[in-house]
Amino acid sequence: MLIEVDYLFPPDVDAEKQATIIAVGQTAGTWSQRYADRADSLRSHLATVVDVKERSLGKVATIRFPLSNVENDIPSLLVMIFGKYSMAGVAKVIDIRLPSDYGQRPKFGITGIRQHLKVFDRPLVMAIFKPALGLSASDHATILQEVAGAGLDLIKDDEIMGNLNSAPTLERLKACRVVINDLKQQTGKELLYAVNVTGRADRLLANARELVRAGANALLLNVLAYGYSVLEALAADPEINVPIFAHPALAGAMCGSPHYGLAYSVVLGTLMAHAGADAVLYPAHYGSLPFAATEEARIRDLLRSRNCFPVPSAGIKPEIVPQVLADYGQDVILNAGTGIMDHPQGSAAGVQAFRQQL
Amino acid sequence: MLIEVDYLFPPDVDAEKQATIIAVGQTAGTWSQRYADRADSLRSHLATVVDVKERSLGKVATIRFPLSNVENDIPSLLVMIFGKYSMAGVAKVIDIRLPSDYGQRPKFGITGIRQHLKVFDRPLVMAIFKPALGLSASDHATILQEVAGAGLDLIKDDEIMGNLNSAPTLERLKACRVVINDLKQQTGKELLYAVNVTGRADRLLANARELVRAGANALLLNVLAYGYSVLEALAADPEINVPIFAHPALAGAMCGSPHYGLAYSVVLGTLMAHAGADAVLYPAHYGSLPFAATEEARIRDLLRSRNCFPVPSAGIKPEIVPQVLADYGQDVILNAGTGIMDHPQGSAAGVQAFRQQL
Repeated sequence: MLIEVDYLFPPDVDAEKQATIIAVGQTAGTWSQRYADRADSLRSHLATVVDVKERSLGKVATIRFPLSNVENDIPSLLVMIFGKYSMAGVAKVIDIRLPSDYGQRPKFGITGIRQHLKVFDRPLVMAIFKPALGLSASDHATILQEVAGAGLDLIKDDEIMGNLNSAPTLERLKACRVVINDLKQQTGKELLYAVNVTGRADRLLANARELVRAGANALLLNVLAYGYSVLEALAADPEINVPIFAHPALAGAMCGSPHYGLAYSVVLGTLMAHAGADAVLYPAHYGSLPFAATEEARIRDLLRSRNCFPVPSAGIKPEIVPQVLADYGQDVILNAGTGIMDHPQGSAAGVQAFRQQL
Repeated sequence: MLIEVDYLFPPDVDAEKQATIIAVGQTAGTWSQRYADRADSLRSHLATVVDVKERSLGKVATIRFPLSNVENDIPSLLVMIFGKYSMAGVAKVIDIRLPSDYGQRPKFGITGIRQHLKVFDRPLVMAIFKPALGLSASDHATILQEVAGAGLDLIKDDEIMGNLNSAPTLERLKACRVVINDLKQQTGKELLYAVNVTGRADRLLANARELVRAGANALLLNVLAYGYSVLEALAADPEINVPIFAHPALAGAMCGSPHYGLAYSVVLGTLMAHAGADAVLYPAHYGSLPFAATEEARIRDLLRSRNCFPVPSAGIKPEIVPQVLADYGQDVILNAGTGIMDHPQGSAAGVQAFRQQL
């Protein structure tokens, strides 16, 4: 199987012409009589335009690229399919179909996370430490103490909480690890804490290993800010034997426009699922975000097809759980920020309100 | 000094309200009476809305963020200023003003690259290996042989040429290094070859060190596909004692839309210049790309303000050199792909045509 990409062009663009520019310009780069002596070698790298169709939003061109042009990873794929061309005019990548063995699969994913938590028959409930900034490491432990006993499955750092002087990552982890250990000892229940791992690429990888050695049982990564190459490195690292939660921060910069960039389902679905993420957070249509239910469903299905846990986020409150169950069934992580932390009866009551719906 | 960011909103948006949502939502994350006991700690992390103005394109809100929220790097900055909010509606980051000591400066930059090449008084001329894919390592050496003696200063891989079986990166380097050594021995002239460094983050960093040990005298990185965190790691690595050329591949996905994402001048100017790039390629308005001369001038000035070499690309032909000189003066790298390789009298004549204009 080859790599197939669908590009959306506005109705007034000559889509056939642009598709040919992509097929040649993003592979051999140039194609003239001068290179006739190298024709065979060039031809093996050329992409081909499979199809150009009129659709409701505009014209969609499907282009097929050879696998031999890329390195079985996401960055080289992105450079090939859209690197230079992204600057050439109005076009959006709306779908990428990859061979199933392209890239990586999650080390844990839905089945691994469920096995760790020993919860197989219901959606998982995840909280977020709030306020995002301004809490000390021991504040984190206090907050976790409040929710841990109420039936929470997972908790995560807010994605903007990095390795700050006011609450260094390792200290947050160590303080919370005590609570997690106590919970396990007293009730037998496991709880995953996805610690936000940050830093320059070399330090981030070292930080991640250090956090795992210090007891981190899950990691959170802002994949689009740090790079898919960093997710791939973490996912392939045998020392990182904990699930990696991919956060969608910055996705709107690439996916928000209807005419430019790449579809949310590509960036947060296909590419995350082939880069080794175990669980992926993405915008849900339950809250105030301008996010289409159809795009959310596509992300859900793309992730599940590779055993990645879908984590719809934004607007997740106890009262919408029946709707989420109808949309998702059991294999979903309910990621609730204010839905838990700002519950009128306190955060433990917030967790219980979710668990009562499941 | 703090971090100041300008956000552009469409005319029909309540920009004051959105700016407040950003200032709170991208820092403390939540702000209610419940957290009154933590008010001081929260307040130190909050951003403030400085100003909201009507401009021709829409409304521009200026927001000031505390430095203590971020890690003196680009990824944590991006997550803070636009991470979640990028998915919240129509908004574009059009300017970021950072303290001058934020992030990194180039190790070489304009002055270092000129010193290495011993060329101080004219623009530099850079070629690109073409066709992009389909050449073997020895084909690269043959092509370099043709242009090296004609007065070329630099050559680079096409950004889609990765570490492929048909021409492994290390083999391309070794084959070309022979030509570079011969040139130096025979004429005393130095020539930089920016080798495209690729791979999973951990391997990319190892590959870069290996390439430098094997004689690479410059590197090329697709920063937006691999991540600013990878550029930062390379720039900070004492073993990487060669200039790093940042390629803009994929920038259009984030910058192309007039309404979403971030401005080209932010992504390819400000952020590259604070992430340690020595030279930055970016679209020029001389060719067919839909790129504004004013945006190009902004990138030029932002890069130069930190000693980064500006490398306008696309449409660079010998006949437009007078125009480039008028726009840029001397401190510019003329990056010509087909302008050299597809010259009717051959690639050496292509180089000479550029040198005659300088």
